[in-house]
Amino acid sequence: MAETSTTTTDTRLASAYDAVRALTETLASPLSAEDQTVQSMPDVSPTKWHRAHTTWFFETFVLEPHRPGYDVFDPGYGFLFNSYYEGVGPRHARAERGLVSRPGVAEVARYRQAVDGAMAALLAEPLDPAVAALVELGLHHEQQHQELLLMDAKHVLSRNPLHPAYVDWPVSPPGEVPPLRWLEHGGGVVAIGHDGDGFCFDNEQPRHEVLLTPFAIGERLVTCGEWRAFIDDGGYRRPELWLSEGWATVVQQNWEAPLYWERSDGEWHVFTLAGIRPVDPAEPVCHVSYLEADAYARWAGARLPTEQEWEAMAMAMATAPAATLGAVVGGAGGFLDPARPHPRPLGAVSPGAGRPGGAPASLLGEVWQWTSSSYAPYPGFGPAPGAVGEYNGKFMVNQYVLRGGSCATPPGHARTTYRNFFPASARWAFSGLRLARSA
Amino acid sequence: MAETSTTTTDTRLASAYDAVRALTETLASPLSAEDQTVQSMPDVSPTKWHRAHTTWFFETFVLEPHRPGYDVFDPGYGFLFNSYYEGVGPRHARAERGLVSRPGVAEVARYRQAVDGAMAALLAEPLDPAVAALVELGLHHEQQHQELLLMDAKHVLSRNPLHPAYVDWPVSPPGEVPPLRWLEHGGGVVAIGHDGDGFCFDNEQPRHEVLLTPFAIGERLVTCGEWRAFIDDGGYRRPELWLSEGWATVVQQNWEAPLYWERSDGEWHVFTLAGIRPVDPAEPVCHVSYLEADAYARWAGARLPTEQEWEAMAMAMATAPAATLGAVVGGAGGFLDPARPHPRPLGAVSPGAGRPGGAPASLLGEVWQWTSSSYAPYPGFGPAPGAVGEYNGKFMVNQYVLRGGSCATPPGHARTTYRNFFPASARWAFSGLRLARSA
Amino acid sequence: MAETSTTTTDTRLASAYDAVRALTETLASPLSAEDQTVQSMPDVSPTKWHRAHTTWFFETFVLEPHRPGYDVFDPGYGFLFNSYYEGVGPRHARAERGLVSRPGVAEVARYRQAVDGAMAALLAEPLDPAVAALVELGLHHEQQHQELLLMDAKHVLSRNPLHPAYVDWPVSPPGEVPPLRWLEHGGGVVAIGHDGDGFCFDNEQPRHEVLLTPFAIGERLVTCGEWRAFIDDGGYRRPELWLSEGWATVVQQNWEAPLYWERSDGEWHVFTLAGIRPVDPAEPVCHVSYLEADAYARWAGARLPTEQEWEAMAMAMATAPAATLGAVVGGAGGFLDPARPHPRPLGAVSPGAGRPGGAPASLLGEVWQWTSSSYAPYPGFGPAPGAVGEYNGKFMVNQYVLRGGSCATPPGHARTTYRNFFPASARWAFSGLRLARSA
Amino acid sequence: MAETSTTTTDTRLASAYDAVRALTETLASPLSAEDQTVQSMPDVSPTKWHRAHTTWFFETFVLEPHRPGYDVFDPGYGFLFNSYYEGVGPRHARAERGLVSRPGVAEVARYRQAVDGAMAALLAEPLDPAVAALVELGLHHEQQHQELLLMDAKHVLSRNPLHPAYVDWPVSPPGEVPPLRWLEHGGGVVAIGHDGDGFCFDNEQPRHEVLLTPFAIGERLVTCGEWRAFIDDGGYRRPELWLSEGWATVVQQNWEAPLYWERSDGEWHVFTLAGIRPVDPAEPVCHVSYLEADAYARWAGARLPTEQEWEAMAMAMATAPAATLGAVVGGAGGFLDPARPHPRPLGAVSPGAGRPGGAPASLLGEVWQWTSSSYAPYPGFGPAPGAVGEYNGKFMVNQYVLRGGSCATPPGHARTTYRNFFPASARWAFSGLRLARSA
Repeated sequence: MAETSTTTTDTRLASAYDAVRALTETLASPLSAEDQTVQSMPDVSPTKWHRAHTTWFFETFVLEPHRPGYDVFDPGYGFLFNSYYEGVGPRHARAERGLVSRPGVAEVARYRQAVDGAMAALLAEPLDPAVAALVELGLHHEQQHQELLLMDAKHVLSRNPLHPAYVDWPVSPPGEVPPLRWLEHGGGVVAIGHDGDGFCFDNEQPRHEVLLTPFAIGERLVTCGEWRAFIDDGGYRRPELWLSEGWATVVQQNWEAPLYWERSDGEWHVFTLAGIRPVDPAEPVCHVSYLEADAYARWAGARLPTEQEWEAMAMAMATAPAATLGAVVGGAGGFLDPARPHPRPLGAVSPGAGRPGGAPASLLGEVWQWTSSSYAPYPGFGPAPGAVGEYNGKFMVNQYVLRGGSCATPPGHARTTYRNFFPASARWAFSGLRLARSA
Repeated sequence: MAETSTTTTDTRLASAYDAVRALTETLASPLSAEDQTVQSMPDVSPTKWHRAHTTWFFETFVLEPHRPGYDVFDPGYGFLFNSYYEGVGPRHARAERGLVSRPGVAEVARYRQAVDGAMAALLAEPLDPAVAALVELGLHHEQQHQELLLMDAKHVLSRNPLHPAYVDWPVSPPGEVPPLRWLEHGGGVVAIGHDGDGFCFDNEQPRHEVLLTPFAIGERLVTCGEWRAFIDDGGYRRPELWLSEGWATVVQQNWEAPLYWERSDGEWHVFTLAGIRPVDPAEPVCHVSYLEADAYARWAGARLPTEQEWEAMAMAMATAPAATLGAVVGGAGGFLDPARPHPRPLGAVSPGAGRPGGAPASLLGEVWQWTSSSYAPYPGFGPAPGAVGEYNGKFMVNQYVLRGGSCATPPGHARTTYRNFFPASARWAFSGLRLARSA
Repeated sequence: MAETSTTTTDTRLASAYDAVRALTETLASPLSAEDQTVQSMPDVSPTKWHRAHTTWFFETFVLEPHRPGYDVFDPGYGFLFNSYYEGVGPRHARAERGLVSRPGVAEVARYRQAVDGAMAALLAEPLDPAVAALVELGLHHEQQHQELLLMDAKHVLSRNPLHPAYVDWPVSPPGEVPPLRWLEHGGGVVAIGHDGDGFCFDNEQPRHEVLLTPFAIGERLVTCGEWRAFIDDGGYRRPELWLSEGWATVVQQNWEAPLYWERSDGEWHVFTLAGIRPVDPAEPVCHVSYLEADAYARWAGARLPTEQEWEAMAMAMATAPAATLGAVVGGAGGFLDPARPHPRPLGAVSPGAGRPGGAPASLLGEVWQWTSSSYAPYPGFGPAPGAVGEYNGKFMVNQYVLRGGSCATPPGHARTTYRNFFPASARWAFSGLRLARSA
Repeated sequence: MAETSTTTTDTRLASAYDAVRALTETLASPLSAEDQTVQSMPDVSPTKWHRAHTTWFFETFVLEPHRPGYDVFDPGYGFLFNSYYEGVGPRHARAERGLVSRPGVAEVARYRQAVDGAMAALLAEPLDPAVAALVELGLHHEQQHQELLLMDAKHVLSRNPLHPAYVDWPVSPPGEVPPLRWLEHGGGVVAIGHDGDGFCFDNEQPRHEVLLTPFAIGERLVTCGEWRAFIDDGGYRRPELWLSEGWATVVQQNWEAPLYWERSDGEWHVFTLAGIRPVDPAEPVCHVSYLEADAYARWAGARLPTEQEWEAMAMAMATAPAATLGAVVGGAGGFLDPARPHPRPLGAVSPGAGRPGGAPASLLGEVWQWTSSSYAPYPGFGPAPGAVGEYNGKFMVNQYVLRGGSCATPPGHARTTYRNFFPASARWAFSGLRLARSA
């Protein structure tokens, strides 16, 4: 991560700290103590765990080593709220987070307040740049967990036969999806990766050159209407459209549609954070796995872009937003609006807003977009020393890269060089796709 | 179940209803919303599920059919809170009860109040004896769930690495365990089963005669101190002491001691509802499976009693308490004291109380006692018609009978003819043992 | 087991040894080296394993301790061919028997010959009665494995999509099944268990008295035609007919009919050791589990007999055959005919033979009959000392008793006191049922 | 695949056909009927299945469509011996191949002879180039199965507690492993993939350019001696050396060394196709997973090469052998010698042979070498039409590329552009590694 100088950072950091921490609490607030306790599958963590773990991160990596005299809030929390940092010590089994009823939400709130108090004191004083960098990392880390919190809460509520809502929002007016147009790229040698200006995760570096052959990328995301056509054309019944592992998964898991879709009364409905809604054909399709995205692309006579193609095209477009911690909440540009954490229908936004209808402002937003790239280190990549070096590098096997951020990504968190990743069969992220083809 | 006449029942029933329903809430009260949500294994149900399910029982079997104009509280609850009654309709998967965060504890409390209100109205009027019998069944059913609630809450809290307590109680003074004496029985033809006076479950009937050969039963329960000697003598390492399935389970599950025991700093400790405590050698051993009880008995040169032997001996002792719904809470006679739901050490009770030290008052109390009897219908058994007929009979395979009631059994619930049952490998019940031998 | 005197035993034993050992080879002979290697599920053992294990039994329990100077054939075989005798040392995992390709069938044949040679020498000399008893036990043990060999080979061949036959036999002419008549028994005190005359397993002793209430037992077995009616009446779709564990198994395993039945072209067919055949309605139903037998009986308005009822009735009938080791092969009385190891249709045998059509000669033969009795020790039961004491007693949990012997049981092996046992969900034995009811 | 002209192909093809088919039988010949039947894990196929499946390939893709009047040998074989071609119809479950005892080895031999006869007739006549290409594909396919046959047979024999040998060979004299030297590459734009001259699989095309930064590759393979040092340094006990999924696998599978290694009497031994042997420190390490190779490289301060780096370096070396079907058997160049299918120790071969000691002749041979590249399509890749198009492309997810061929790869089969692939946790291939580093 990029270093920051002492004097200018403090105020910005303190204010960013407040904004990020507050957003976590805002996102948790519609969830009851019971909601915040449940773990619906091993990949999911309870809401209160997310709230405590992000707090533990600041306590462990910032306060303990850099705040002399700091007393840990509870010595047992290190075991409970360490996610995966082997360098920090033993930890509770991930799949058993939902078995831990105590500390409860009230105690977790006290934990957050205590750490916030100590952090406020620390941020009020001049900071060593290395410590400031750890704080900044902790805030980006917490933003990642904000999205996970929503993904996980959605999965938890979806397993309830009563289909409860997290929040409510009005049904969108019917959108009009423009026909798919293609953005062309001439290929050649392009530089990929973060250039060191502003924050980035270690996996976005080093910036390096790659050689691309000419390609094109779809101007807009694949929609639910298009996905319905895929289903109607036997998409989930034709093995020739699928990777071998994809077809095996379809058969074994009885996949017939994206996660959260269900057919009732002859129509497709989808479980959203507002409860069950009819599928809106103008919405970007969401909650599909890499395996499904790959099959869809094959059916459509196209393919998924590589992450290098995606980034090269994104850079070629002028308006990609810069990362800004604690950016205004409200979902501008296809990112998180806590009052409506759901992909917006294409064509429903006024053309003047620079979104569908006119030329696309950027490739970012609404849903994470699967690329065909396996998650691998960039040439020359080396993780940071110490336990924070476990942040990214050790996951670089059997995962596929997604790009672009989603309607559950806090504004200011994603950027064109940002590399998200999930296993090929994962569906509970806000994941969709954009097509590509070779020129 | 035995019928009751209309006029005398009502007041008693109404008052029993209030007492039983109140005890459930008392037992749940130390548990937070989060505690009440967790399901730590498929056999365990969340506390709030128990509170709702017992309410659903009254709503479904009493109010709906017998209270004209009654409106169900929530139409979705039938699916969520039906435990196993196939005759009533489809139901939520048992292993997924811990995935349901809503309704939460506040809503469940409203559900209980609504049903209690309707029940109070029903109980204030003259009752058809068949309806009164259903109410009585519902109360005994709720008492069973009171014990399950404690068993399950104990298991949930035990999976928390912080070992939280449900309640606290003072450590008992050291007890003095008398040497084991044997109660002799001459065998012969004895009548087994409930004679129809007062409530019983259908599985306690019909009363019938069996032929017993002479036998003896231990005057007192097997203690933790004796169990420690079994462990020290290689009890969990010697296959010749075990049934084949027992030994396979020992190896596969790494059993080294009863459930909840763990060795730390060279001493055996045990997780209790008051947290971690040193093992008290004078306490009856608890949370052992049938497989372990059988191995222990073999090691001790004895065997487990059959349920017929146990009942014959219990009947031969004068002081067995009669079942009394809503009996005084306080743990007299080795039954539930909500302030100390744990087996009491032998010898710690004053001899005058008719418990160890003098002649035993009865075989009942402290821990359920495994018998060597597979759970099977008595000759001529037939389940009740309708869905309540599913109550007992359909579980009569691959289960073993336990007798006597425990420190988690509400006072007045158990009786000498009472047949509890669990699979041979189950350990989360308050289950111990009493030895027997052939004369 | 009963002891035998030295002088009269030897010749009979040597000749019985030859007959029993020869039958094993006869039964294996239609099976290729490949057939004899496969293990189709953990419960199944490869044919060549049965051939070697029964040989190891004689080598380990007779030759090694009682034949001075005997050299074991191969020191590695003890590990491979010990089935479950903990007292003899460590052993190969049961579920991995099908992974062991060597020794192959030729080597196993040499092993058998070597042990047979040493046994012949031993049997040619005067024998200590205790050794003779071990030989006799070994022969009855090998007879049990003869039936297992057929059960297992049938399961192996059934998993082959080409449905190969073990042997071929002509289709039976249509039988005429008589209506079900009931054999009445007045109950009272009856003696159960083996009386010590002739061989028996330890689990058949001690003989003891039980008190029975009056009952009736079906004069004939339940047939495939009756079972088809059960299926047609929704037998596998109505939870109210099933034990709870039974219904769970039906749902989980998709049971729709007995094992080996499959519907093709609208008709029920069944895989037999002669390949696929149409279901013959006059045949006794076979390959049903306890759970299915119990459900059928409930559907038929009856129940299964207890093992005490079964034995009491069997003793009340005059013609029960005595156990005779090495009895004439040929299937007389419903036992094994190697040329047709399959239940014979009722009514197809001439009435003069004392089988269906006239009064039944006995309750034995054709299919093992599930009883409602859990497999438990008789009062006063104690296993034999040493490793052979592991023969029976350690399996006395979670198993149900079957009585009567089957078309895969060697003639002379079964008797009225004989107790077979399998888990309630097992279906690969030649298991059927006979109804009972209380008088 | 590249097309071939009609007239010149036939003789070469017929002779190659004979040579390849004969080698399969040679490889199977030390295996008994029992050996050839066992499937020791789902990834493994029985030897007789390999022999039949490769035959089915010719029958299905060559004889049936291109030999008018050809009658299939057995209509049931299509179901049994189709491996994964969805386009050809339904097929037997892969994990159940070990349940099929029939057809046995004799019948499979007849099947091979019948197809070989029909193929000989076909190859004796002028061939359409498209058919010739299918025959050539079938031969390369059968060569792949020759290596699988050895991998699988080794795994089967390894599960036998008696550790039987496939063949025997003398222990190698001690080798002297030279210190690791590095081969440097200056990077830049290089062309990757097959250029269309001679046979290749579809996944080696299209040839395309990539941009590489300067790098170095180890001149020799990592040895068992080096791996022992890794073990001794806590390699399998230090999570910081491992990818997250790697460490989880180490813990879950109790990995402590490569597959087939076991410590006895304080020394490491290894199961080989000649039985148990002491680990030879001069041998290339074999049977390690990608996860282990990655951890080792991290421990060694290096990394794995990408497949592009590997191929660029291999091309930069002059002596890479051309693929020649049916090349002389004998293991020249580190490939299969049926009399010794095992990696040869480094330094044991005379320097004049162009192998270790002097400059390396090539990167190929002895063990497949894990690269850090996920198996993905080359830019512009499109599978062949029809069922043979399922050959490679549909496996391009969650697999990692290995390069170089092994001591179990038939001579003439591998080449510098050849892409083998296995899941990251697979260990039963003859897989090792060569280190790389960035310049």
